[in-house]
Amino acid sequence: MADPRFFKKSQSFTVDQIAAITGCEVIGNATFIVEDVRALDSAESVHLSFLDNLKYTNAFKNTKAGACFVSADLANLAPSGVTCLVTSNPYKAYALAAQAFYPENCPPSKISDTAFISPTAVIGDGAVIGSHVHIGDDVQIGDNICVEPNAVVMDGVVIGNNVRIGASTAVSHSKIGDYVRLYPGVRIGQDGFGFAIDPAGHVKVPQLGRVIIEDHVEIGANTTIDRGSGPDTVIGQGTWIDNLVQIGHNVVIGRGCVIVAQVGISGSTSISDYVLIGGQVGIAGHLNVGMGAKIGAQAGVIGDVPAGAEYLGSPAFPKRQFFKQVAALNRLIKKKKSD
Amino acid sequence: MADPRFFKKSQSFTVDQIAAITGCEVIGNATFIVEDVRALDSAESVHLSFLDNLKYTNAFKNTKAGACFVSADLANLAPSGVTCLVTSNPYKAYALAAQAFYPENCPPSKISDTAFISPTAVIGDGAVIGSHVHIGDDVQIGDNICVEPNAVVMDGVVIGNNVRIGASTAVSHSKIGDYVRLYPGVRIGQDGFGFAIDPAGHVKVPQLGRVIIEDHVEIGANTTIDRGSGPDTVIGQGTWIDNLVQIGHNVVIGRGCVIVAQVGISGSTSISDYVLIGGQVGIAGHLNVGMGAKIGAQAGVIGDVPAGAEYLGSPAFPKRQFFKQVAALNRLIKKKKSD
Amino acid sequence: MADPRFFKKSQSFTVDQIAAITGCEVIGNATFIVEDVRALDSAESVHLSFLDNLKYTNAFKNTKAGACFVSADLANLAPSGVTCLVTSNPYKAYALAAQAFYPENCPPSKISDTAFISPTAVIGDGAVIGSHVHIGDDVQIGDNICVEPNAVVMDGVVIGNNVRIGASTAVSHSKIGDYVRLYPGVRIGQDGFGFAIDPAGHVKVPQLGRVIIEDHVEIGANTTIDRGSGPDTVIGQGTWIDNLVQIGHNVVIGRGCVIVAQVGISGSTSISDYVLIGGQVGIAGHLNVGMGAKIGAQAGVIGDVPAGAEYLGSPAFPKRQFFKQVAALNRLIKKKKSD
Repeated sequence: MADPRFFKKSQSFTVDQIAAITGCEVIGNATFIVEDVRALDSAESVHLSFLDNLKYTNAFKNTKAGACFVSADLANLAPSGVTCLVTSNPYKAYALAAQAFYPENCPPSKISDTAFISPTAVIGDGAVIGSHVHIGDDVQIGDNICVEPNAVVMDGVVIGNNVRIGASTAVSHSKIGDYVRLYPGVRIGQDGFGFAIDPAGHVKVPQLGRVIIEDHVEIGANTTIDRGSGPDTVIGQGTWIDNLVQIGHNVVIGRGCVIVAQVGISGSTSISDYVLIGGQVGIAGHLNVGMGAKIGAQAGVIGDVPAGAEYLGSPAFPKRQFFKQVAALNRLIKKKKSD
Repeated sequence: MADPRFFKKSQSFTVDQIAAITGCEVIGNATFIVEDVRALDSAESVHLSFLDNLKYTNAFKNTKAGACFVSADLANLAPSGVTCLVTSNPYKAYALAAQAFYPENCPPSKISDTAFISPTAVIGDGAVIGSHVHIGDDVQIGDNICVEPNAVVMDGVVIGNNVRIGASTAVSHSKIGDYVRLYPGVRIGQDGFGFAIDPAGHVKVPQLGRVIIEDHVEIGANTTIDRGSGPDTVIGQGTWIDNLVQIGHNVVIGRGCVIVAQVGISGSTSISDYVLIGGQVGIAGHLNVGMGAKIGAQAGVIGDVPAGAEYLGSPAFPKRQFFKQVAALNRLIKKKKSD
Repeated sequence: MADPRFFKKSQSFTVDQIAAITGCEVIGNATFIVEDVRALDSAESVHLSFLDNLKYTNAFKNTKAGACFVSADLANLAPSGVTCLVTSNPYKAYALAAQAFYPENCPPSKISDTAFISPTAVIGDGAVIGSHVHIGDDVQIGDNICVEPNAVVMDGVVIGNNVRIGASTAVSHSKIGDYVRLYPGVRIGQDGFGFAIDPAGHVKVPQLGRVIIEDHVEIGANTTIDRGSGPDTVIGQGTWIDNLVQIGHNVVIGRGCVIVAQVGISGSTSISDYVLIGGQVGIAGHLNVGMGAKIGAQAGVIGDVPAGAEYLGSPAFPKRQFFKQVAALNRLIKKKKSD
């Protein structure tokens, strides 16, 4: 079971109830009661697990779980006695089941008396505002906000409903939508890296834009998003950003993108919808990345990327070309050996 | 116009006034009044814009701006009716004009009563000290400092005049000059990564140096600068550092450098004046990078870099050699195809 | 001498005393009194220095230090009059000597009255708790903890004895051992990057594990360690992690590892004991890195790494193969030139 110091289980469920929540077909005992979720290798007979990554097929064959989400083509590998919940997306089904067991617990509304809240700030109902939070002048916040300790919301920021702002974050010059989640240490809205290079002293270009964060966005710990220089920096609806990512000024990111840790996106680049960007990727400035493109980890993108393309390498090339380069190089050194 | 929630315009200017501020030559209507600055593609007839990157030449040809900074060789591409402010450095001219429209607004002096300030700290005139700031024992701070909420300045730190310290920063073991700007989440002065490796337990090497930050330096959000191990870590005058950069102990950086986001510079490396370092570059320890060198994004520098050289790749080579490597590799895979 | 604003020297030592502390053999004047430690090039006759990196052999030959740690094979290069402290590990000996001159000064126990400490938190003896710290419900902390200003320890966290928690850190969902040190801005225990990708909106997978940090671990500034998704994320005893590192959910790291700045380790990867990982390395998810492996800076690891292996490059290959690739490429472009 998840450590009760940190997590509170709601209840147990029958397999049938889980199937209804997740839209799965049951093969096995539908009235069986599952008491919790757990990974394949540590699950016991009262647990619900899932097989999503083929790497874990062997763990599935040997699992002691009582029930398991699995795709139709792999269900026949289940050990006897395991009830299968068959679905085309076992990981999504697991996500929904785990949410049912462990619903996000919203603490009751409470405003710490060590927080500073400007008298001109407007905050909706149900707010939880932690110790030593700072909320500046003219800030507007919707309902059911949860602001963790020591977060800083600077003057004028606008925030929607059901937003969670992690500990020790700092937000300025921004408009933030509904159901957004900022993890601890996020920095949003500071000046972009804009200046005219001059040996006599670089000349600062005032950064006159904002950061716009649309609904359902998640932004990982210690990630930095600079505000625009005139245009805005925009993070599109439902995009998820991991930890320690850098987003430069005027970058526009579409809907439903996934941006893994330590990515850097330079100023004025535009990323279309549903783009996947692997960890530690760098993307140069003033480029366009097309819808649904996939950019592999550590790639260095120095030109536009067409919609649907897969790119890898530094400098980045289409994935097939990149792997041919690697293969050619390895043939070359073998040939040398045999010379 | 820049969002008035966040930015306050000072006034309008005639083209002549702007020309005087920026040192440009006017081609067109010098008495024309410009009301604001704006990007080429969104500017209207009352706006002042600029063309600096050739990528935007087309936007310039179609701009509706009333006036525009542009270099002499491109001024003839201006749409009819656009007043040109001709200069050899349009971006610098724009920077100065935008500063005139939107001067940095220093709030009136005010010390939050939620801040903790040690009775042995000495702070100059005109200070703005935000909520929940911590200023430790024996700290010395000059005039006109602005410390944003939840920043931490540890014991003994010395800070000059006209410095801005962003929200949630932490500074220790440091001497900081005038006109320095630390963005939110910066970490300065913590122990360097110094220890003798030992399977029985790594042995910590006390880090007995400081961080010295000279005048007019800017340091981006969540950047980390470790203090020296005995010698100091030094950031030279007028150097600009972007977000999420790592500077190891004993690193010495010269004047007027530009260091883009997510760069890592290992311990005891020395960077001369006016060096440009692209995003995500890594530089190994105990190296020298010569004056005016340019190191391209994602490069991995493992040897000294001569003055004025341009390096690229991981491991880094002179730029021409790097592009030859890439070209040779692509010829190789084409050849393979045709074999 | 180290700047007395920041560092307090304990006393002077005779060479004999230093030899006893560090286990060295003395060649020269054993009753000589050394007053401080200093680097080879700035040391004067009253100082103790060390030669560890062959790059500094010349500085050793010309040092004005009175005494110096050095390995047996290099001692004969010492300038006449320099007393040698001969050891197989000069850097470790220097570390122990410097610790004797500058013992870590633990300030006297004191709890700031601006800190928020939940009435249900339990804190041991000798605690130093700085300004605006937040310590949540049911937190358990051992003896001699030092929590710097504005740190946040969320509900339920368990922390051992002799732990130092840097300024502006945030810790949740974690169990932390003894003698652990978290540098400023560290983020530990936030949700991992776990969700089922779905164009209709990514579906969050509740992250039900913890972060376990064993004894004697150091974690650098602004580093982020996500909690497990069900299993725990584990950092093994005596492992040292540098600044701006990203550790994904369910990662398990063994004992005595060294992880340099800006490394990213993806979810569910397992790192054995005594692994060295250079700066800016990326390691993909669900992999195993064997005991004592060395992974060079900027490598991109996409497969398992055997015990003891040295890997380099992106994608990473065994070190010899990587350097052959680089050499082959450079031969190729020379050949082209001569064609």
